[in-house]
Amino acid sequence: MKKHSTSLRVRLPVLVLVLEVLLLALYTAFVTYDNDANAKLQNNETKPMDNALYRDYPYFADIQVMIFIGFGCLLAFFRLYGFSGMVFNFLTATFAIQWAILVQGYFQFSHAGKIHLGVINLINAEFACAVVLISFGAVLGKTSPVQLLVMALLEVPVFSVNEWAVLKYLRINDAGGSILIHLFACYFGLGATFVLYRPRLNEGHAKENTSYQSDILSVMGTLFLWVFWPSFNSALTLKGDDQHRAILHTFIGLSSSTLTAFALSAMLNKNGKITMADIQNVTLAGGVTVGASVDMMISPAAAYALGVMGCTACMLGYKYLSPFLARHLRIQDQCGIHNLHGLTGLISCAAGICAILTATEEVYGPSMYEIFSHRAPMEGDPKLLELQELIPGLQPGLGRSAREQALYQVAAVFSTMGVAALGGILTGFVLKLPYLASPSDDLCFDDELFFNVPPHYDCPMALNGQIKTDDSTAS
Amino acid sequence: MKKHSTSLRVRLPVLVLVLEVLLLALYTAFVTYDNDANAKLQNNETKPMDNALYRDYPYFADIQVMIFIGFGCLLAFFRLYGFSGMVFNFLTATFAIQWAILVQGYFQFSHAGKIHLGVINLINAEFACAVVLISFGAVLGKTSPVQLLVMALLEVPVFSVNEWAVLKYLRINDAGGSILIHLFACYFGLGATFVLYRPRLNEGHAKENTSYQSDILSVMGTLFLWVFWPSFNSALTLKGDDQHRAILHTFIGLSSSTLTAFALSAMLNKNGKITMADIQNVTLAGGVTVGASVDMMISPAAAYALGVMGCTACMLGYKYLSPFLARHLRIQDQCGIHNLHGLTGLISCAAGICAILTATEEVYGPSMYEIFSHRAPMEGDPKLLELQELIPGLQPGLGRSAREQALYQVAAVFSTMGVAALGGILTGFVLKLPYLASPSDDLCFDDELFFNVPPHYDCPMALNGQIKTDDSTAS
Amino acid sequence: MKKHSTSLRVRLPVLVLVLEVLLLALYTAFVTYDNDANAKLQNNETKPMDNALYRDYPYFADIQVMIFIGFGCLLAFFRLYGFSGMVFNFLTATFAIQWAILVQGYFQFSHAGKIHLGVINLINAEFACAVVLISFGAVLGKTSPVQLLVMALLEVPVFSVNEWAVLKYLRINDAGGSILIHLFACYFGLGATFVLYRPRLNEGHAKENTSYQSDILSVMGTLFLWVFWPSFNSALTLKGDDQHRAILHTFIGLSSSTLTAFALSAMLNKNGKITMADIQNVTLAGGVTVGASVDMMISPAAAYALGVMGCTACMLGYKYLSPFLARHLRIQDQCGIHNLHGLTGLISCAAGICAILTATEEVYGPSMYEIFSHRAPMEGDPKLLELQELIPGLQPGLGRSAREQALYQVAAVFSTMGVAALGGILTGFVLKLPYLASPSDDLCFDDELFFNVPPHYDCPMALNGQIKTDDSTAS
Repeated sequence: MKKHSTSLRVRLPVLVLVLEVLLLALYTAFVTYDNDANAKLQNNETKPMDNALYRDYPYFADIQVMIFIGFGCLLAFFRLYGFSGMVFNFLTATFAIQWAILVQGYFQFSHAGKIHLGVINLINAEFACAVVLISFGAVLGKTSPVQLLVMALLEVPVFSVNEWAVLKYLRINDAGGSILIHLFACYFGLGATFVLYRPRLNEGHAKENTSYQSDILSVMGTLFLWVFWPSFNSALTLKGDDQHRAILHTFIGLSSSTLTAFALSAMLNKNGKITMADIQNVTLAGGVTVGASVDMMISPAAAYALGVMGCTACMLGYKYLSPFLARHLRIQDQCGIHNLHGLTGLISCAAGICAILTATEEVYGPSMYEIFSHRAPMEGDPKLLELQELIPGLQPGLGRSAREQALYQVAAVFSTMGVAALGGILTGFVLKLPYLASPSDDLCFDDELFFNVPPHYDCPMALNGQIKTDDSTAS
Repeated sequence: MKKHSTSLRVRLPVLVLVLEVLLLALYTAFVTYDNDANAKLQNNETKPMDNALYRDYPYFADIQVMIFIGFGCLLAFFRLYGFSGMVFNFLTATFAIQWAILVQGYFQFSHAGKIHLGVINLINAEFACAVVLISFGAVLGKTSPVQLLVMALLEVPVFSVNEWAVLKYLRINDAGGSILIHLFACYFGLGATFVLYRPRLNEGHAKENTSYQSDILSVMGTLFLWVFWPSFNSALTLKGDDQHRAILHTFIGLSSSTLTAFALSAMLNKNGKITMADIQNVTLAGGVTVGASVDMMISPAAAYALGVMGCTACMLGYKYLSPFLARHLRIQDQCGIHNLHGLTGLISCAAGICAILTATEEVYGPSMYEIFSHRAPMEGDPKLLELQELIPGLQPGLGRSAREQALYQVAAVFSTMGVAALGGILTGFVLKLPYLASPSDDLCFDDELFFNVPPHYDCPMALNGQIKTDDSTAS
Repeated sequence: MKKHSTSLRVRLPVLVLVLEVLLLALYTAFVTYDNDANAKLQNNETKPMDNALYRDYPYFADIQVMIFIGFGCLLAFFRLYGFSGMVFNFLTATFAIQWAILVQGYFQFSHAGKIHLGVINLINAEFACAVVLISFGAVLGKTSPVQLLVMALLEVPVFSVNEWAVLKYLRINDAGGSILIHLFACYFGLGATFVLYRPRLNEGHAKENTSYQSDILSVMGTLFLWVFWPSFNSALTLKGDDQHRAILHTFIGLSSSTLTAFALSAMLNKNGKITMADIQNVTLAGGVTVGASVDMMISPAAAYALGVMGCTACMLGYKYLSPFLARHLRIQDQCGIHNLHGLTGLISCAAGICAILTATEEVYGPSMYEIFSHRAPMEGDPKLLELQELIPGLQPGLGRSAREQALYQVAAVFSTMGVAALGGILTGFVLKLPYLASPSDDLCFDDELFFNVPPHYDCPMALNGQIKTDDSTAS
């Protein structure tokens, strides 16, 4: 692979041109406005401020910050890979969203052969995008922008099909996306990195380390993700008290996991000092762990406990599991997504199942059948009419029992993990095809390969007066 | 000019004192609260949550982030000019807004001799502020804070008069401000920099370059602008579906222009690598290009195409046009605002005119006469009454035909460009007056001139142990 | 003190474990959902979009950014203390909020022995958290994370009791928290740092200085605080015109204080250059100064004047008062909180009192009795019935006169200052207890003490090729 050129001069423009022609054709043929964005449907009944825009846009904006600034900074933690981490995230995210609007639209938002576009589609597309970026974390530093675009091109459809199938046939509760987003992204990324295994990187790489500035930048990314995570977990819940709980649980879970992360970081280091990598990643574990039960009446204390548990599992994963995976299972998980999204995701699913099994009308009142909509009585069931008097507009459900719903959740977990891992492995083989500008081992974790970097970017001495003349050519 | 002192010790305080006395006097004499901020007008009809605050504030907050953090980081891209880029942006922006509240207030928000102040005025003032900051991009690194305040002092009134005259007499559609904001700011800035021409800078300047850290900081600024641009383009549209479309179009346009920017950046570099300056600037082209038609029913595909076109024009401008302007037309456009705001603005206006010419009731329904309000039938026209039954509260218009409206748009483009260029040139001459602390050529692009910088700020070796003692004096 | 070990390996985990067990027990026993987050209370009357969530969450999110990113970056201004400033802020803030939810909940949000949790509690808890972080500014660089957690553990209850007592018994107007937040935080922090006095630090410390990058990072923090301060000052005002005014006044006050800060910074430096520390701190003075009268009809001009006055006092405080306090009163105020929160807070209180004394029904209309709720007529007073016809749902008040209300404000100022200073001093003594890992004088302002730092983090030469091999051990 090393013999291949890694110049992007032809590869990237050609790929992008093909993709853009494809996207533009599909947008032209199939994408129209949804009712809330369509001028024609405005009449003397439609009140402008009732537009769905005003319910969805604030959450969309928060998620935008997480995707582009949060992830971007977080992935810029390598000393000489800041440009790539931040900017490839930007490139991959923008393409993934454009592509997801079409693929998800086809499966979830199409009526009469047209995809109806509104801000709500953008939110869904950003979730698909988050999936790609999480998987990106597994192969960070070892992939070219061409490979990343190809990965997004393949991952978005696999994700969308799985999401659609699970929601349509298994009918699960997963407000925070622990199953459909975090577990999927994790095992897809592990599958891909398994195929892209580079034995020499196990010996340690001279550039696989951080600098003072890159550590600080990465923590900023963490803080942006931390601050807006409640919006992420609550963006697609039912409005009202459900969304309110989702925000409370996410905030509490993040807080307790952050406190725990500091303690464990100091405890697990022989010298009793804090490691920045732990602060950058493990503090966020709570956000994932509350995901599957985030809109349920689990009580604030349970959210607190979930944060602590998720954080502990995540930290131990970084300490013991990741090295093991790399050494013995050929799985080089660069950012440790298996710890932050896999282990925590599994705990989250387990918690969600417990919450489902223990849910009672006593605690939830009749609106239990809104949150667990598949447990609502079926069409024609007299119980449905009673409930509809208490909760107007309650939809008929499948009349599932708690145990049935729990079993479907389990089915969703395993099928998602399977689909994701398989999709990741196949994608990995595609990424190994020639002409994708895959970097050689020595040039991993180095911006110089794909960027015009300032002279002596790896040696600030360059800024020194003597060789300033070199610099003047850099602008 | 070099002989003049550049100490700010007297100049800046005196100028600021004069400005503040002036501003305070004018605020005292003329500024009062608008109805939604006036306690006295609250009665048992006024519902607190109906306050305009709740419609406007979220957009205001997003634009605040763009102005102070987005622009601030973006303009900090020079290796030794980070303090100045970020902090002069802060200074100029705060003054421009205070000043614009008064000037715009006089022209647009005054009733019975009083300026009525609400958050909506602040949004308008931030647009005026954005104009000044865009023009600032043309003279970045070559101007003192005193000059920047003077520029803001002169540019805000010229902008406000042009905005007021165009809206009152030409009556155009320009939701995203392509004409009134981007074209105006661009040609005003070019006019000013034309007069401030410094021949020696064409030979290249030892400090006119970036560092690894400054490039990353600048990309962060780009990302903040990118993320919140939909709020910028939609802040002043009609509420409801119009604003919804504005957000969709801006997001799609930005996405496609970002993807294109990466491809072109790699393609136009002989070594096939990506240039950070392209990512910092060209990715944003789509946001400007969709501006003039952002609230119209142009279809998502058209927004996509506009993003690609604007990005391409912008990129070619950086590659070929800017060097030409600097060498042959004495126009040193430091940040290339002519590419990012001028060329894209012109494409945007052309697109807006096409959208106007092709607009039909078939596509828009009766609300066409809300979006193109000047095409609504005139008072007394029976058609007006029919329409008002369909769209309550539809205002009578001017009964313009599509072609008439298009011609007015064209008139607005050229008159705005003319007024801006002339105003910029005259401002340039004012900025050349002595005692404005204009930096000498060698001290351009250097924070040391106007800031107490940490010792050896241009040479990180200074942090080394040996000379730490020097540092201890720096706090 | 130097002899004590500063390893966090046992101390931090033990303290955190104890705290988490305590918190989890209390959450389990006492914390439940408030009505707007409780599924059971949803019925066919409750409209989802009427949920308090949609009024409170946007302000909560803005304050989150201020607490975690604004403060975090601002406190990272030391050259070698960026990890600590940013990350200890993160740790302290998360714990303080968890703890404040319980303590404030007990005093303000408990019904029938249960704390009712909603987003509104989180906003209140973030205010308590802001208090701790302001006090943290006084002892920055001289304290261990263990000490900071202990400080938060003690400060939150003292703050909450004072807040509760003042609001319940003195009944004051303090929308922006000038008294309850800024004055309290300031004098608590000064009390603590007075006890933690370190004579040797008065001689200057080799690491007590900034670098080019740390100064820029800190300004970013300032900008985030600046941008979202209007949300901070208006989060707890009455909805509608009151909140509208709070946002306008805060924005105007910040703008005028920023402009003033630049002028004074240049004026007070012999060399006529701008000092970054002034931009980082003094520009924010206006936000505090408008606090106590932020929701009143003081006129925009008054907000402007308050910004200028507060900024001037703050700047002079940094220049002359802080050195005096350190040299003669053993008060080492690391970030100058006495200037930014103390002096400005006092001016704010004085302004608030003037606003109260000059308030008339002529200016406010009947809603004067909503803003100054304690001046509303008492139950049974015929005037109350008249007013309730004009303002439905007006609560009966205490029938206070303006002068009476003013006297209660004065009482609140002095009692708060007294309680805070006393609490701070006592906390200071607790922080001096052994085993809290207090850093030795030479290791103050240095990340190396509590963090695994990249090799040669204080000497970027390390990034140089020759010793890259060392680096490879750092990841």
